[in-house]
Amino acid sequence: MALYGERGYENTTVAAIAERAGLTERTFFRHFADKREVLFSGAAALQDLLVGAITDAPRSATPLEAAAMALRAAGELFEQGRAGSVQRQRVIDANPELQEREVIKLAGLAAALAEALRRRGVKDPAASLTGEAAIAVFRIAFERWVAESNRKRLPRLIDDALSALKTVAGG
Amino acid sequence: MALYGERGYENTTVAAIAERAGLTERTFFRHFADKREVLFSGAAALQDLLVGAITDAPRSATPLEAAAMALRAAGELFEQGRAGSVQRQRVIDANPELQEREVIKLAGLAAALAEALRRRGVKDPAASLTGEAAIAVFRIAFERWVAESNRKRLPRLIDDALSALKTVAGG
Repeated sequence: MALYGERGYENTTVAAIAERAGLTERTFFRHFADKREVLFSGAAALQDLLVGAITDAPRSATPLEAAAMALRAAGELFEQGRAGSVQRQRVIDANPELQEREVIKLAGLAAALAEALRRRGVKDPAASLTGEAAIAVFRIAFERWVAESNRKRLPRLIDDALSALKTVAGG
Repeated sequence: MALYGERGYENTTVAAIAERAGLTERTFFRHFADKREVLFSGAAALQDLLVGAITDAPRSATPLEAAAMALRAAGELFEQGRAGSVQRQRVIDANPELQEREVIKLAGLAAALAEALRRRGVKDPAASLTGEAAIAVFRIAFERWVAESNRKRLPRLIDDALSALKTVAGG
């Protein structure tokens, strides 16, 4: 990841990444399908965390409350390594192909949240809408969090964006 | 488009599309960058319509009301040719690469809506959230509209999804 920042994503070879990480190329390819995967390999763990938190939310929680608990849990996790997230975001912002990959990853997370809500008995379109709205909240909070001027914690920024969503939709 | 339905998107060549449309391949490529573009060439016109409707919405309209007016206007337009939309959706549903292209197109529309709202003086995160929520509403209404069992008009399904969004976010 540091190499992407130093040389640019396009100019970084798998050989160079493997060398920096002290791996052979063969070992690299046991962990990642290609060099893009280095940036997106966290998606599965993030999805598991979000889905698990929705599943474990109290029965009394509304769909949006359950989703909010999941987002806050993810926010706490990201707080453990803001520097890495900032670096990753810079690499993605500099490359349209990676931005598209990120959009697709987020759409997958929204679908996974909706599916977890359906398993709690939430009907459509409420389940789909909550999944999409929650991921929009997360994306917007995350953008503010990685911005240079930010001094707030991610869970707090998530709550700010949730409040804005309620104002927008309830107004 | 009909050829994609008959032969499958992967098995349809530009030569076959051009022949069916009574065009030379050279003329085809003057209109479309590649065969995928046949499916996504309407995106720019849709974006213009949505952005124009937001710009023209009364000053008194809230951000979500302005976005809702834009979605309803788009809904009326799509009503003029449901069969084509159903056919297009089947082609896309059968091809993961096209589904990704669709996700990226929708993300672009959400960004364009947010930008149009900012030009009306709406601040962030309200502008971004409204753009994302509106496109989620549209996507969900559109999915129901092209489903075989649907008998409702698209503008009506858009209003249904908007109501569900208000319930989800306001509850």
